[in-house]
Amino acid sequence: MRYFMTFSYDGTNYNGYQKQPKAKTIQGEIEKALKKINGDKKVDIHASGRTDAGVHAYNQKAHFDLSKKQECDKLIKSLNSLIPDDIYIKHIDEVADDFHARYNVTAKEYVYEINMGQYNPIQKNYQYQYNKRLDVSEMERALKYLEGEHNFKSFTKANEEKEDYNRRIIQTLLIRDTKDLNHITISFLGTGFLRYMVRNMVGLLIEVGEGKIKSEEVIDILNAEDRRKAGVCAPACGLYLKDVFY
Amino acid sequence: MRYFMTFSYDGTNYNGYQKQPKAKTIQGEIEKALKKINGDKKVDIHASGRTDAGVHAYNQKAHFDLSKKQECDKLIKSLNSLIPDDIYIKHIDEVADDFHARYNVTAKEYVYEINMGQYNPIQKNYQYQYNKRLDVSEMERALKYLEGEHNFKSFTKANEEKEDYNRRIIQTLLIRDTKDLNHITISFLGTGFLRYMVRNMVGLLIEVGEGKIKSEEVIDILNAEDRRKAGVCAPACGLYLKDVFY
Repeated sequence: MRYFMTFSYDGTNYNGYQKQPKAKTIQGEIEKALKKINGDKKVDIHASGRTDAGVHAYNQKAHFDLSKKQECDKLIKSLNSLIPDDIYIKHIDEVADDFHARYNVTAKEYVYEINMGQYNPIQKNYQYQYNKRLDVSEMERALKYLEGEHNFKSFTKANEEKEDYNRRIIQTLLIRDTKDLNHITISFLGTGFLRYMVRNMVGLLIEVGEGKIKSEEVIDILNAEDRRKAGVCAPACGLYLKDVFY
Repeated sequence: MRYFMTFSYDGTNYNGYQKQPKAKTIQGEIEKALKKINGDKKVDIHASGRTDAGVHAYNQKAHFDLSKKQECDKLIKSLNSLIPDDIYIKHIDEVADDFHARYNVTAKEYVYEINMGQYNPIQKNYQYQYNKRLDVSEMERALKYLEGEHNFKSFTKANEEKEDYNRRIIQTLLIRDTKDLNHITISFLGTGFLRYMVRNMVGLLIEVGEGKIKSEEVIDILNAEDRRKAGVCAPACGLYLKDVFY
């Protein structure tokens, strides 16, 4: 029986989503719980993709197979009682045997949170504390150049020679909080994202906001297909996997 | 020289504001840092009041004396570099020698955050995860009965016989987040608050929201002057000291 689940997590205290032999990971914690539910037989979960250490998820998705049929509501309850309270299983459905939570993804949305105001210790692990005003209008213009299909080699760790660096960003948004003008949220909806791609795009947008790079230079940076052209990687704690679409 | 500071903190990893011999506290951490700045001489800080373990502060205020005059901006920087990153000194001013951060308080505002939606692991330590819909209108009516001058003995731990339980709540607000209708913030502006008073008032409001108590019964509960009449204490993690006025 194949199951498909939606779950959220606070990535602060994890070494990323993906299982590792000695480190605490989201996948590791959920698989440990599933093994107990599955009569002590190992269960592999297949997520829509990994998230790095410190990155959070509102709606990560994954599938897994169990040896016996289980009632979904009961399964949610058992799982939530076995996993740490910074991970939460929101929903589980039965799915067809050929459904795959990674291969069948059609789009993903990531959001990135930036605080341009005074350092807020309460949000320490949940936003990038930039602490200075950025030129938000110029950032919004730069953001629009990232939309569409591009080779995003300048925005990833280029280590695999044969990798296809083309991705399509369907829509971007830069939202300024009306209650707190120092807070901005940047949203990226795309068919897929390369490793560090969102954080590298945000890093570039910050340099645009600082006036170091002009918004139209984003075109040259994309065309360069060279990581060294695109500035720094924004911190993990500001990044959230918001949704995965199928 | 007397200094007056505004600071914020994430109360999650502290045993409350007030110094204790063996536990990690906000006051303990700041005093440790101030001692270094003050030529290894002990500095006592006097805050507007304590906050309990797990309670957060956006703008806590305190005064302290240093043996030598220091530039306020430099003092902020030195202090912030010495304290943990879940405490942050926002502002320091020189004040008159007879200014007292506790005795001179004219009002305080506390806010309490409640999530009536699905459990959110990312906000685990920052709101009360109630997970069910409450009758918000009835809660708002109940809240209004708490405004004004009352004996709040029903809302505190009554252990000191001669204590004056009269306090005045100047204004209350119940705000429903327009972006997330499941999220409510309750604000209490008052001349002073007894220990656990805000959390006990919120606990009662939740029982009103659940339909267990009618809003107008708040009057009887106030008049009873008996802790046993007023229901449970809401969890610390939802509470924030928002501001202190002088």
